[in-house]
Amino acid sequence: MTREDYQQRIEQFLESKLDAGFTHNSSSSKLDEAMRYTALGGGKRVRPLLVYATGEALGINADLLDLPAAAIELIHAYSLVHDDLPSMDDDALRRGKPTAHIAFDEATAILAGDALQTMAFQLLSNPMQEICAENQLKILNILATASGADGMVKGQGIDLAAVGKSLSEAELETMHNHKTGALITASVEMATYCMETAAEANSEIIVKQRKNLTEYSKAIGLAFQVRDDILDIQSDTETLGKQQGADIAAGKPTYPSIMGMSAAKEKLFNLNKKALDSLIDFGEEADSLREIASFIVKRIA
Amino acid sequence: MTREDYQQRIEQFLESKLDAGFTHNSSSSKLDEAMRYTALGGGKRVRPLLVYATGEALGINADLLDLPAAAIELIHAYSLVHDDLPSMDDDALRRGKPTAHIAFDEATAILAGDALQTMAFQLLSNPMQEICAENQLKILNILATASGADGMVKGQGIDLAAVGKSLSEAELETMHNHKTGALITASVEMATYCMETAAEANSEIIVKQRKNLTEYSKAIGLAFQVRDDILDIQSDTETLGKQQGADIAAGKPTYPSIMGMSAAKEKLFNLNKKALDSLIDFGEEADSLREIASFIVKRIA
Repeated sequence: MTREDYQQRIEQFLESKLDAGFTHNSSSSKLDEAMRYTALGGGKRVRPLLVYATGEALGINADLLDLPAAAIELIHAYSLVHDDLPSMDDDALRRGKPTAHIAFDEATAILAGDALQTMAFQLLSNPMQEICAENQLKILNILATASGADGMVKGQGIDLAAVGKSLSEAELETMHNHKTGALITASVEMATYCMETAAEANSEIIVKQRKNLTEYSKAIGLAFQVRDDILDIQSDTETLGKQQGADIAAGKPTYPSIMGMSAAKEKLFNLNKKALDSLIDFGEEADSLREIASFIVKRIA
Repeated sequence: MTREDYQQRIEQFLESKLDAGFTHNSSSSKLDEAMRYTALGGGKRVRPLLVYATGEALGINADLLDLPAAAIELIHAYSLVHDDLPSMDDDALRRGKPTAHIAFDEATAILAGDALQTMAFQLLSNPMQEICAENQLKILNILATASGADGMVKGQGIDLAAVGKSLSEAELETMHNHKTGALITASVEMATYCMETAAEANSEIIVKQRKNLTEYSKAIGLAFQVRDDILDIQSDTETLGKQQGADIAAGKPTYPSIMGMSAAKEKLFNLNKKALDSLIDFGEEADSLREIASFIVKRIA
């Protein structure tokens, strides 16, 4: 399947889950509406794409990947809603639309984010066909560990503390490895457990493949952020769908501001090479992963 | 064990989990501190008490109950931090201490709440000794369902929408059944799955006991809220550890305001009776559950 096929697939899957069981009470329809507003109709869906592409590389049926793909996208969506809040990054524009606290109100945005996070774990804790409970728990644990105080939220904490300060390249990397890297790696690792038995998921060959896929994910996770920092300077607001120059304006350290634009572009090139090298043991079944790496490096929004 | 024993047990257990693995990076120490501030050192611990007391009623070793007890308390703690935010209930005092957004700042309070929620699911997705993966997933699913857009968060959404409006008693009950009732019922139901095999957890006798225990939990969940509304009027700020009269001042509908104080007290009495009636098939092994029902009805804070 192409990237567009998978993007459409996850959009429809999320829509079906957000429509089922979460919208039956008119008293809380504003909350339901805010959840759909923030989770549907936009975004590059990089994390779901990685789940599906990793599944392709390992020969896993896409039907087994829908729930993990949806769950990680819900975590990502919740994090965007909360990061955009006035007390956080105070952003007014996201994916070309007003951010949730502007389209609705602050309380609704906080609650919708909270509920999107819970929904991710709710989806993953329903019995899954063809994935044993042990593997399912492992998938859940990977997602929870990557999302929380040791992962994504820690990254956002470091980010808030870093505003207006100068960070070293190593410190910037630590922040991004948590803030965006953790979920990108989790996308790949979760997919490697979408198997019927625990024995299969822990077989020698899968353990080796998982190691290489994790290397790949770490490289593209960081590449994603370097590209983001470059786009913050070189793109424009309409293309980005969010305020161009927002990081610079907020006094946030970025790769170009720390190491210069040409060194940042070189870093991006090297990370892309590292990602492709990690896939050396795979044949054309990993072409979707290779395509995602190129997309991340070349994307314009 | 007495109520105080269990309160001490859960405090120590939460402390050990919050100290392990969540505090190693000085860059995010403010976040870690805020998590400990909001989750430790206070609270009645009603939900963990219910987990342990349900375990007693079913003859389950307390060691199997620590993780579910901690997880549900973390969800409760996160919900308090977010409910207290300026855009929500805007409360300055909680458990006799400044609320998190005042002791720290708003962004840190939001993030700490987010991370406490994630931590709940992280704890429950680690392999548990003596509980099979199927039962563990069920425990996780009960917690997620009770916490999210169909449970607690829906209740908070209804609550926010209800400020300054007049609700019927039935509407008020719907709000509370979601906002506080869902987690109280989940505390009891989660404990009934803390067993080694799925066959055991789904045996005829346990299914029947679970039904009665759920009835009990629904009655005390509502009783808890009726008592809360009465205390909001009749207690004082120092005893409550939060602002007395806050609900009335915020224009929130309460049981005494809708049905009058004496009818509210009668309702409380009837709910307590209903809770005790639900335990009729149990012997003295359910005395802790009976004691919690009395405590909820008679508590002064």
